[in-house]
Amino acid sequence: MEPGVAPAAASTSARGPTEGGPPAAIPAAVTLTDVEAAAAAIEGAVVRTPSAVSRTLSEVLGCTVVVKFENLQFVAAYKERGARNRLLALSADERAAGVVAVSAGNHAQAVAHHARLLGVPATIVMPATTPFVKVARTRHLGAEVELHGDDLAAAMVRGRELVAAGRTFVHPYDDPLVIAGQGTVALELLADHPGLDTLVVPVGGGGLLAGMAVVAGATAPHVALVGVQTEAYPSMARALAGGAADPPSDPGRSTLAEGIAVTEPGTICEALLRAHGAEMLVVSEQAIEDAVNLVLDIEKMVVEGAGAAGIAALAQHRERFAGRTVGVVLTGANIDPRMLASVIHRGLVRSGRLSRLRVSLDDRPGALATLLAVVGGAGANLLEVTHQRLFADVPIRTVEVDVTVEAIDAPHRDRVVGAIANAGYRVALLPLDAP
Amino acid sequence: MEPGVAPAAASTSARGPTEGGPPAAIPAAVTLTDVEAAAAAIEGAVVRTPSAVSRTLSEVLGCTVVVKFENLQFVAAYKERGARNRLLALSADERAAGVVAVSAGNHAQAVAHHARLLGVPATIVMPATTPFVKVARTRHLGAEVELHGDDLAAAMVRGRELVAAGRTFVHPYDDPLVIAGQGTVALELLADHPGLDTLVVPVGGGGLLAGMAVVAGATAPHVALVGVQTEAYPSMARALAGGAADPPSDPGRSTLAEGIAVTEPGTICEALLRAHGAEMLVVSEQAIEDAVNLVLDIEKMVVEGAGAAGIAALAQHRERFAGRTVGVVLTGANIDPRMLASVIHRGLVRSGRLSRLRVSLDDRPGALATLLAVVGGAGANLLEVTHQRLFADVPIRTVEVDVTVEAIDAPHRDRVVGAIANAGYRVALLPLDAP
Repeated sequence: MEPGVAPAAASTSARGPTEGGPPAAIPAAVTLTDVEAAAAAIEGAVVRTPSAVSRTLSEVLGCTVVVKFENLQFVAAYKERGARNRLLALSADERAAGVVAVSAGNHAQAVAHHARLLGVPATIVMPATTPFVKVARTRHLGAEVELHGDDLAAAMVRGRELVAAGRTFVHPYDDPLVIAGQGTVALELLADHPGLDTLVVPVGGGGLLAGMAVVAGATAPHVALVGVQTEAYPSMARALAGGAADPPSDPGRSTLAEGIAVTEPGTICEALLRAHGAEMLVVSEQAIEDAVNLVLDIEKMVVEGAGAAGIAALAQHRERFAGRTVGVVLTGANIDPRMLASVIHRGLVRSGRLSRLRVSLDDRPGALATLLAVVGGAGANLLEVTHQRLFADVPIRTVEVDVTVEAIDAPHRDRVVGAIANAGYRVALLPLDAP
Repeated sequence: MEPGVAPAAASTSARGPTEGGPPAAIPAAVTLTDVEAAAAAIEGAVVRTPSAVSRTLSEVLGCTVVVKFENLQFVAAYKERGARNRLLALSADERAAGVVAVSAGNHAQAVAHHARLLGVPATIVMPATTPFVKVARTRHLGAEVELHGDDLAAAMVRGRELVAAGRTFVHPYDDPLVIAGQGTVALELLADHPGLDTLVVPVGGGGLLAGMAVVAGATAPHVALVGVQTEAYPSMARALAGGAADPPSDPGRSTLAEGIAVTEPGTICEALLRAHGAEMLVVSEQAIEDAVNLVLDIEKMVVEGAGAAGIAALAQHRERFAGRTVGVVLTGANIDPRMLASVIHRGLVRSGRLSRLRVSLDDRPGALATLLAVVGGAGANLLEVTHQRLFADVPIRTVEVDVTVEAIDAPHRDRVVGAIANAGYRVALLPLDAP
């Protein structure tokens, strides 16, 4: 999650329009010239990532899919572009005094990495609840990490103190220089694939889509701009809809797409999206999970939840993109390995390849062997057998057995279940979250 | 696993030097001209894959690592190159009669894909024990798949029948046209990175390294050629050592690196490796597993066991490569998702991030809560608690509890274990394969 509120700037002359959330610099407007200047400034220090038509994703999703691989940046996220562009604009005094960012995510790593490259002291404030790995990785990149409070709002208190003490705040999105840096993604993507008619971009605070909108608006105004949010954090979608329409189905809950879990969209970003007529789509958590698996399976690439949101939109809103030529940004790849393994397993369960079947058996010698012969005869691969003795809601002298099996797909799984039932057993397919 | 033995050719005029394993075509020698011709022939139908210096892998492995991403081919493996080059050389009659391959791996998919593109009927014979997914994927690519026998040797019996009936056999490696096709990897890699002084390449039958050796020998003879095999299948290493030296530590067992699990190296391949002075290194299964995790974690790319063997060699034989500039081919990415999830989990266990601790507790209310307070106080994240009641080797009135925890790293994990012991509990760290 990224903060929705920026701390007060140390110098107070330049202020944005909102209470409590002043953008870090003026002017509020971002132009193509700004993005081109950013491209020249960051060249060589940020990866000019590849992009390519994915034949298989196109076949699966029913439109021509061009994938932009921002997951291949050094810190595995596009955030480096905006962070470096912002850091390059520091004065000599500001460089010496150092910078501060409040983030537990990719912005933290991007600021840490480029601050070190530029010799600027960087302090990253993270909530004390931040996962170990993210703290360690950001420290490894050379930043000082301070853990403060239980969430980003609390961490921001410490961020404000550091800004008051003279450090410059690097906003994760609501800063014209950051937006201009992120916009360089569109310069590259549209240069490599001039035939695109649609851009689909994950939106948290909105910095990436805002920057890309500036480029598309100036060089390819026919290109449709589509931002994607998770239904758990539809902040920009609500803002652009006037804050009222399409109430979110389940806002504020936990999400696999941490990188776009933003409660307050950037004000500059929102203005730019509005000016360029960007459309917002909201996707389900399951669509995001499926998209992570799809990219892993087809593109053989690791992508984090937020990074897969664009692909999720193509799948969930298929009719919206039918026949179009769509550029999708895979924005980042920083997913916890344990989470990734879990997403893979859940994908196998959803596709019917992994299943857990609860079967009632007579509690006598040979009963399990007979059951397993039926399972094997149906062509399923046996992975695990566990007995449910204490709490099984079955007659005494009967035992419940959970059998985990691997099948070819859902229809084959159903045939396996049918074979067990036909052999006279009581059998139930356990749902994903069964105990 | 790929077959070590080719079936007898339908026409009997051209034969190689060995009993039972005749290469499918002459001449046995492969030259730079052959590889250049292959490059021209396959251009546009096979991905010209990117390659790049990996800064983080270089830092971790102590040499300059240039990664060649053959995992980004359409069927996610370099095998397309040789397969297409071989198919292009078919006569009109041979095209009409169709081809046969015996493979449960990447060669099967490569032949299926390019045969369909070229309008050539293809039959792939796989053992009846082949995992569902591989069968389905090869069928999806348009080939007819026949399941025959319990292993590749048995499947080869059916392959020979199809060859006798007029089909052309496409050998996975021991064919000059296949070798020339695979050699195009080196043309691209050495053109992109002329400063390389070492090539590190996974070896099964040896087709890829043989083709690359031809290119390096002709255009960059100073480049050291290093082939990598798993200790479970060190066939080429033994052959080049005269069949005697360095007996394998555990040959023939199961391996994560199925793609290089070859029992008999190609005879043409072996001759080319010998002629070009290739050196062989053998790596452990654990090194291969660790390498899959390293590529996933750092490069954010999926790679199969065989595909990671080159990285495994850099890690396990670190001193051999110190300070060198090494081109490593990530040869393929077709790893079963369930296997991948398992490799991720085992990597977390080995690094100390995931641990299972067995603790003896008094069997009284509140005992578990007290233990878990100690675990939490030591900063570990609790993932799972299970009771071992029936078979615990502890006094009655005592219960064993397995506590699965997440820690920052191995030293932190050790501090957690120490905190539990200091609180007066009997505690043991369970090994990876504990029940």
